[in-house]
Amino acid sequence: MDSNKINLSEKLATFSDYFAPRTVARLNEYDVMVVKVKGEFVWHKHDETDDFFLVLKGKLDIQLRERTVSLGPGEMFIVPKGVEHRPVAEEEVHLLLIEPTGTPNTGDAKTAAPRKLA
Amino acid sequence: MDSNKINLSEKLATFSDYFAPRTVARLNEYDVMVVKVKGEFVWHKHDETDDFFLVLKGKLDIQLRERTVSLGPGEMFIVPKGVEHRPVAEEEVHLLLIEPTGTPNTGDAKTAAPRKLA
Repeated sequence: MDSNKINLSEKLATFSDYFAPRTVARLNEYDVMVVKVKGEFVWHKHDETDDFFLVLKGKLDIQLRERTVSLGPGEMFIVPKGVEHRPVAEEEVHLLLIEPTGTPNTGDAKTAAPRKLA
Repeated sequence: MDSNKINLSEKLATFSDYFAPRTVARLNEYDVMVVKVKGEFVWHKHDETDDFFLVLKGKLDIQLRERTVSLGPGEMFIVPKGVEHRPVAEEEVHLLLIEPTGTPNTGDAKTAAPRKLA
């Protein structure tokens, strides 16, 4: 994290593990993160916050209980707070995420990935 | 604004005026906006919030008093709260902006562009 410009592709090139978001910047009390995703995440929800997804590369399905939102590059979706969802990607996908600092990625601090810097 | 996915290019294709952000989604108490910029904006600052810029297309210079941050597609910068800045684009540039709802784009409600939906 630095006070200069942030090149998202360069940040994504610094790691290869999935479902392990890297914080690249802070916006007030929010973390701006990049993440690589492949496969199925767990069903979860965030009772305290909406959940911002922007696809940078690849294709992401955000499964909701009633429907699936399919996103390609340049497409975004905000999962409203309290809504159960599961991100699924058949092939590797690169995402920009924005969440309040400290939000557990699984919706539960006990199972959440540790928040890392890129 | 809708509860479905948001295609940023499609939203940008719905208008052509510069420095007039369109809100495409809400993230908690924040507006997620797209904007087209060409030319020089005014020097301004936001005393209450950081200011998020992500370049989607084109090239943006964010002039600060001490230096200039030059951004291309896939590059972002967060202007810290209270820091004077001026966005400048020689050619048309498309941006994603995120700010607390109601933040005046000029830093001053008297001169701010009205906030529109896309």
